[in-house]
Parts: sequence; C-alpha cells; structure tokens
Amino acid sequence: MSIKRLGRQTVRFSAPPVIAAVGSVAGKKEREGPLGHCFDHTSNDSYFGEKSWEKAESLMQKKALETACGKIKLQSCALDYIFAGDLLNQCCASSFAMRGSDAPFFGLYGACSTFCEALSLAAMSIDGGFADIAAAVTSSHFCGAERQFRLPLEYGGQRTPTAQWTATAAGAAILRADGEGPRINAVTTGVIRDAGIRDANNMGAAMAPAAFDTLTAHFSDLGIAPEKYDLIATGDLGRHGRDVLLELFAKNGVDISNILSDCGMMLFSGENQDVHSGASGCGCSASVFCGYIYDGIISGKWKNVLLASTGALMSPTTSGQGESIPGICHAVSISAEKEAF
Amino acid sequence: MSIKRLGRQTVRFSAPPVIAAVGSVAGKKEREGPLGHCFDHTSNDSYFGEKSWEKAESLMQKKALETACGKIKLQSCALDYIFAGDLLNQCCASSFAMRGSDAPFFGLYGACSTFCEALSLAAMSIDGGFADIAAAVTSSHFCGAERQFRLPLEYGGQRTPTAQWTATAAGAAILRADGEGPRINAVTTGVIRDAGIRDANNMGAAMAPAAFDTLTAHFSDLGIAPEKYDLIATGDLGRHGRDVLLELFAKNGVDISNILSDCGMMLFSGENQDVHSGASGCGCSASVFCGYIYDGIISGKWKNVLLASTGALMSPTTSGQGESIPGICHAVSISAEKEAF
Repeated sequence: MSIKRLGRQTVRFSAPPVIAAVGSVAGKKEREGPLGHCFDHTSNDSYFGEKSWEKAESLMQKKALETACGKIKLQSCALDYIFAGDLLNQCCASSFAMRGSDAPFFGLYGACSTFCEALSLAAMSIDGGFADIAAAVTSSHFCGAERQFRLPLEYGGQRTPTAQWTATAAGAAILRADGEGPRINAVTTGVIRDAGIRDANNMGAAMAPAAFDTLTAHFSDLGIAPEKYDLIATGDLGRHGRDVLLELFAKNGVDISNILSDCGMMLFSGENQDVHSGASGCGCSASVFCGYIYDGIISGKWKNVLLASTGALMSPTTSGQGESIPGICHAVSISAEKEAF
Repeated sequence: MSIKRLGRQTVRFSAPPVIAAVGSVAGKKEREGPLGHCFDHTSNDSYFGEKSWEKAESLMQKKALETACGKIKLQSCALDYIFAGDLLNQCCASSFAMRGSDAPFFGLYGACSTFCEALSLAAMSIDGGFADIAAAVTSSHFCGAERQFRLPLEYGGQRTPTAQWTATAAGAAILRADGEGPRINAVTTGVIRDAGIRDANNMGAAMAPAAFDTLTAHFSDLGIAPEKYDLIATGDLGRHGRDVLLELFAKNGVDISNILSDCGMMLFSGENQDVHSGASGCGCSASVFCGYIYDGIISGKWKNVLLASTGALMSPTTSGQGESIPGICHAVSISAEKEAF
C-alpha cells in the first residue's frame, strides 16, 4: 500500500502544498450577486471585448491566471505545470487560453468538478516531487454554455425550477511547495456515480449522490467527523441538489446543514437574480473559491475548509440518446495551518 | 528545484512504474490493416452490438480496460486511479465507460495526445506515492468523430490528401509500482504550440511543431541523443506531419528518419486502405502501443521506446471562428530494463 494513501479514495500529503495566490474573473450578473465585490476583474460586456463568447472565456481564464501570477510576481512561463479545463467542446477555452503560457500543460475534463480535479492533480504533482509551482485554472461562460448545451440565447427558452445558471467566471490558483498560505492537506478523488437521473435540467439531483459518496469516503478514509470543518462547500449542487445531499446524510443520521454551503447558491441571490436552483459551471466553484473562500481562510473566518466540486458528466448527445447522467465529486481539504490532521 | 525534475518539461521517476498489462480493441478497418492481428478484440460491426457509435466507443474502452485487468487477474475496482479520455464532446465515451468501474477517476482531454497524457499522470501518481495501481485508457471511433467534427457519414464528403482517418480503437495500460514488465522511466510534458495552421484537414502540420518542441526538450532535458531510442513513435502526425517533423529536425542538423515511426502510419496501409495521410484519434496511439509496441518491447524487438502522442486542440467552433490550431505533444520514455538512463 502506498504510504500516502488512506482508504480507497483519499491521499494525505506528506508536505502539504501551499496555495500561494489566486485570481478570479467574473461577468456582469456575477458582479451583481452577493459575492460581486470579491472578484479581481469583472466586465459589463459578455464578450469581454472579444468577438465571440468562446474567445471571451479564453480571455477570462488567461486573465485569472495572469492575475494570480501577478500577485506573487511570477511569470506564467515559470509554472512547472498548468492543469486546466472548461465545459466547451474539446475544452477549447483552456487550450486557447494557455497557448501563450509556455508552460507544460495538462488538459482536464470533469464538468463542474474540474476545479477540484485540477487542484488535486496540481497538489499531487508538487507533493510527488515533480513540480515546485503548479496552477489549477478553470472557467465557464453562460452564453457559450447555453448555446452549446441547451438552446440559442435568442430563443428565450423557459427554464425549469431545478435548472441551474452557468456562471460566467474563471478562477486560478497557484500552488507551491513552500511559502505562506493555506495548505492542501488531503484530496479525495471521486468515483463516477450514476443515480439514474435523466433530466439534464436537474443536474443537482444527478450529482448529489456522487457528492454524498465522496464526502462519506473523505470522512471515513481520514477518520474524521464532518465537524472537523468550519465550512464544507460543494459546487455546484444548487438549492435542489443541496437538499438531496442533506437528505442522504440525514438517512445516515448525520446532520451537516450548519456547515454545508454550495458554491452554486453562494454566487447568486436566489431571490432576486432569477437563477432558479443556483449557479453551475467549471467557473463557479473556481471563482467562489478564488474570489471568496480563499480570503476567508486567510482572514481567519474559516480554519478548515472542504471544497467539493461536483460534475455532471453527460453531453447533449448522450442525453439525446436517452442516457442517464453520471455524476462525480472531487474533494480538496484546505487548512489555514500546516498540520490540521 | 524538485528532485525528479530535469529541465523545463521532463521528470525522471525515482522508481520507474511498470506497465504490467495492456488491452486493445479495434474496428473492422483496423483489423484489415498491417497490425490487424495484434489487437485483443475486433468487431465487424461498427456499433459493437450497441445502439449508437458513442455507446460503441464506451464499450470499446471498457473492454480494453477489462482485458488488460484480466491479463493480470485484477478487478477494475482494485485500481487506485483511472486516467481516461476521448474525443467526444464532454469526453462522454470515457465517463460512460468508467461509470461502473468503482475506481477513483480523472477525466482528461488532450485530443490525440491523451494516451500519453494519461500514461504520464498515471506514472506520476505511482512514483509520487499516491497509488500502487493506476490505469491509462483512451479511445476514438471513426463514425462518432466524423459526424461530430466533420460531416454526416451519409453525406460522403471528399477528403483532402492531408486528411487523417480517425481510428476506431481503444487501448488500456495498467501501471504498477512493482513487478515485471516494461518501465516508464521519464515523461516530457508538452507546452501548447500554435504554428498558425488553420486547415482542420491538415492536423499533421499543426501538430508537428509541437512534436518537434517536445522531442527536442526531451533529448535536451535528459542529455541524451535521439539514438538512445530504438523506436520513436509519434502519434498521430500521419504521413504529411511526419515529413514536417523530419524537416524541422533536418534544419537543426539532426536525422531521425531511421528510428521515427508514426502510429498514424502504422495502423493502416497507406497504399490500400484509402486513409490519405494516415490514422488519428485518441485510440490510435493507444491501440498501436497496447496492441503492437508493448509486445515488441516484451519480445526484445525494441529496448528503448519513446512514445510521443500528439494532439490538435481545436474544436469545430474554434475552426469556424477562424482560429488557428494549437498543437501539443506528450512524450513517455519506456524501456525493457529498469535503469535505461
């Protein structure tokens, strides 16, 4: 048994990597939400000055990474690895964002779970001795996602109450082997779970069982209670998915309602922003973490945070072929102190 | 500087992981090619008994992994990690293939470079102390790719001389910390290179500069000459891309024509199979390695092999928006012996 592995899904790092800096970029609607003041860059223009929403998303991702690098006076070419992903077909927002970076690049796809997938692999690359500095970067764009996954925006389609609103946002985190800052102590990698949900407008229900599995494995593998954490932030189950997750825990006699927040619910105001179940997209948990949660750890608001990004792994083709929606959830344990466990 | 890192892009493993077993699956056209007798499973039916080509691709990927696991009497749920990817939108061939595997899953996207990306990360997960057993699995399907990237098959569109034929194939490799078998000694991770090529029917030209960069970095980082290898197998530059790569080396006074093969040229017979420049797809280098090259290392035909999968990171959307095609190449150094360097 490898020495860093605890249980089936979790690894604990021998020298927990530091999250040295973060950068976040968001759109107009995200700026109008409860976390609007937290982001490094926002724009009123959904195109961010570019000619297409896809190019805009690439620019957002690039800007998030440049901002994070800038905060610690680092050139992006000094990165040993970039781990990046997005929702666009062939993950093209990431490839086009990073084509000028001059850093070794690993492209990832985990739907909305991609940010925690990227953090996990970046942390492993450092703790494994392969890198000193690595970046995790993800993004999503409402307009690009809407026309790719659903309907042309001009169509003005009705949205169901369980539908989620893809965030126009990007987040980037720079991990280092040494230095000051919150540390990633452990990661729990998700197993694909298919609960048989076929409604692509109810992704929360499709992802909640995966979140339940990964969180349960995390607590069990590390031998800790959920209360070890001041904040467990899933992302992005939305309102309906969070209810399903709480119900799954309640059936096992566990109540985590006091410490469970969902990035999809934090990004928008459910009452005023007409987003139905909440936000989603690779950029949601990335921007909420990089724009908001990271500062909360630095400022002492939270000491131990479990970030658990969730992904719905369907495509319009698989849904059109009557397939159910596989879900996945990757969890990353982040602490203000070096030895939290 | 991390101790395993050599130069900007290469890491050398302290305990080179073993490729303990491989599995390969291919379609009818691939069986009719020069390597047709090498694959574990082939089918005359492009649907592999499924109702859609997408489902067929998932089945192929699953079968490749099960076959590899079966050869060493391993259950797929015993895998510490699965690293998998494909060309379909949202990488759904992989997600749907692995939803029953019960193993921690990392989804990847690197276009046709994905197999070497998966091998690299799987090897890093083992050498980093995070896993004892990990799998690298990728696939592609001509029919699914054709209708997604190009035109409906029924349209019968003409193909340009530089066009490549997406392989209907899947390959899976099981890596272990210990045991007998070829070992992965080092990996060189690609930087995204954009040579300004805009013709999506000339992917070889778009990827060759990336291959040149990664191979050059590999030789330089490790301080070795290309002749260290008995075989350098790029995948998949095709005939035209290989010519460009040889030309780029020739400009630098280096001749690797004797040891350079391309998986895209090995899979089909250029004279008789009407595939124009050769094969492509995530399943091409995966099936050529798992079906053919692996056995050649075991049998002593080659002692040191450099597998260098290449990817063209465009999407139909980016090409439609007039973008050029970014390329990437990841190289994996595999040897019959433990200490090749």
